[in-house]
Amino acid sequence: MASRLGIKAFLTFGAGWFANSAFNEYVGRKSKSPESLVIDGRIVDKRPALPLFGVVSAATPYDTSSGTDVASRVGQIMQFGFPSLDNIRSFDDYVLSYDRRNRVANWVFEHLTPDGVKHNEAVDRSKCDFKEDLSIHPYFRSTNDDYKGSGYDRGHLAAAGNHKGHQKHCEQTFLLSNMAPQVGRGFNRDSWNRLERHVRKLTKTHPNVYVCTGPLYLSQKEANGKSYVKYEVIGKNMVAVPTHFFKVVVAEDANKNFMMESYVMPNSVISDDTPLTSFMVKPELVEKLSGLLFFDRVSRDKLQFINGKKA
Amino acid sequence: MASRLGIKAFLTFGAGWFANSAFNEYVGRKSKSPESLVIDGRIVDKRPALPLFGVVSAATPYDTSSGTDVASRVGQIMQFGFPSLDNIRSFDDYVLSYDRRNRVANWVFEHLTPDGVKHNEAVDRSKCDFKEDLSIHPYFRSTNDDYKGSGYDRGHLAAAGNHKGHQKHCEQTFLLSNMAPQVGRGFNRDSWNRLERHVRKLTKTHPNVYVCTGPLYLSQKEANGKSYVKYEVIGKNMVAVPTHFFKVVVAEDANKNFMMESYVMPNSVISDDTPLTSFMVKPELVEKLSGLLFFDRVSRDKLQFINGKKA
Repeated sequence: MASRLGIKAFLTFGAGWFANSAFNEYVGRKSKSPESLVIDGRIVDKRPALPLFGVVSAATPYDTSSGTDVASRVGQIMQFGFPSLDNIRSFDDYVLSYDRRNRVANWVFEHLTPDGVKHNEAVDRSKCDFKEDLSIHPYFRSTNDDYKGSGYDRGHLAAAGNHKGHQKHCEQTFLLSNMAPQVGRGFNRDSWNRLERHVRKLTKTHPNVYVCTGPLYLSQKEANGKSYVKYEVIGKNMVAVPTHFFKVVVAEDANKNFMMESYVMPNSVISDDTPLTSFMVKPELVEKLSGLLFFDRVSRDKLQFINGKKA
Repeated sequence: MASRLGIKAFLTFGAGWFANSAFNEYVGRKSKSPESLVIDGRIVDKRPALPLFGVVSAATPYDTSSGTDVASRVGQIMQFGFPSLDNIRSFDDYVLSYDRRNRVANWVFEHLTPDGVKHNEAVDRSKCDFKEDLSIHPYFRSTNDDYKGSGYDRGHLAAAGNHKGHQKHCEQTFLLSNMAPQVGRGFNRDSWNRLERHVRKLTKTHPNVYVCTGPLYLSQKEANGKSYVKYEVIGKNMVAVPTHFFKVVVAEDANKNFMMESYVMPNSVISDDTPLTSFMVKPELVEKLSGLLFFDRVSRDKLQFINGKKA
């Protein structure tokens, strides 16, 4: 089989390091391409082996029918700092950083207001389709096929229910760059959804709610005493299945005082009677685990509560 | 133990999802800090739970005794494009993108010339010390302690032997941000070193050699038919142990024509008689696996050879 795939030389050292690895899966797929030639047991492309595309650095702007001044909306959403600056996409009502290695966002950032989350008859979620994000280079883009048969939901990071101001805002949350493979029953459709509703409800007492959401890939100690990160990858594009998800929330009340809440939930079936407070962790812990820095521009003397306790 | 660590509430839902996880390791460490208080079974810091540091966006400049105009040197090294734009550090003679989640670089970029790699009596490698990179936020910084007792070498990504122009250039390659945990005997000290020497030797025929080096975290198919990424993490800072490493090289000859070579080697013991050519893979494959785009500004009609074959 190795020889048929043109990677015989690649395996001649015999230790089988690459057996069943991502290589074989990719090379196997590649070798079926009509553009590939196998010469002397090697794949040689007819076209030069360089990417055909430059670095895509921003999402193609949507048409302006949503009535949003995108630049100033981004300034509002991100006013307390960017968690990282890796592959940023600015949409009409949320901002995203894309992880090209894992084919899942690093984080999404939203600014919720009472108006933006309230029921709006003009917005019909059922008309929104899950779509590939064409602003992501095809090498790193997840597709609907990657999720098919995987057993995982296409779980929103920026929740559709947070973006009811315009049909376009809701539609943009259905881009696959905003999805992560999530356990469906017991997580995405249940406890994770409870957390999303809790965050939306904060707009009843806090006119401005900022929320950063993203995946985590956490290590476990194994029997040999060593720690390992282990996570599944699905589909031809090897979309990572996060082990956990985080939400870090900053909410501003009418007196311009702030509170912060910070959650980590495992991407697993969680019993509906588990209180959301049991998933609260210190924001610094999420920072260390994610490699991100949250809300570093929030004035610290304005922060009155962290996870429900006086700061 | 959970209660002693102040994370009892965190575990009350009982499924033990976090047992032995990165949480416990971090929270355990945190709880020993004199700044932490445990109240009602929760850790409450005396200081506000926000990062004390903003995003560090560039390395602190070294003194100018190395005689390098850093800005123009960066322009030279990176003239064919950045593989990504995540946490870039520009040193006097190489450029690095740091992965804050894995505490290892995403990539390093070097520009080798015959002068830069030749023996220089003024440069003494034995006087170089492995040092923490203070330009990395302490949450995400690797330390010498992380490597101690791990069984892994502190393996250079930008090789010390490529930077013999000035003592400072050599010293800067010893920053821990330029290190990755590598298998010592059979890899770092042997076959990986053979590859580094091969790349240096290209300067004999090619006056300009550009090389991008970095880690990979590749998936394996398991007995259940599913694919998983699995890698060890070492030390208190959970520094990732890459499963593989890549090098992508572009070399320019005296006639300004280019050749490209692209390698992936497993982070394992490799027999010394394994030819380096057996690790050659198509550059696009490295791009897909790493989430990076290499040399996208190299003019394709100037590229004559890829992995030794006519392009």
